[in-house]
Amino acid sequence: MNESEIAVAPMHRLCEKAGAERVSEAGAKELAKILEEVGVKIAKEALDYTVHARRKTIKAKDIEIATRKVMGK
Amino acid sequence: MNESEIAVAPMHRLCEKAGAERVSEAGAKELAKILEEVGVKIAKEALDYTVHARRKTIKAKDIEIATRKVMGK
Repeated sequence: MNESEIAVAPMHRLCEKAGAERVSEAGAKELAKILEEVGVKIAKEALDYTVHARRKTIKAKDIEIATRKVMGK
Repeated sequence: MNESEIAVAPMHRLCEKAGAERVSEAGAKELAKILEEVGVKIAKEALDYTVHARRKTIKAKDIEIATRKVMGK
């Protein structure tokens, strides 16, 4: 994973939504990096379901089931 | 959570990184929504550590420890 796909700026707003006054720039970058990793992990799981269903396009239902697996819900 | 902070467009690239050919628009939106929820959850946990350390700014180390807790690592 060379480049980050998720922008850092929205991470500040996510932290505000969580009730924080501020997040450091390093903290915002760390959060973006982590969400990217979680996103790829979920997408990989979702792809397993997609392929199993003989599709080539990941659908919302694949993402949903993959999330339950990755997040342990 | 009324508006989504995380953009949908990068979700397509995340799915490509995961090895997928395509993700439906609904699938990309679902992934963005989930990552936003995970992000706020991590930020809330991080804020607990921030406040405990008598700081007002979430730092990268708060995000790191919060991630381990939320993701069960």
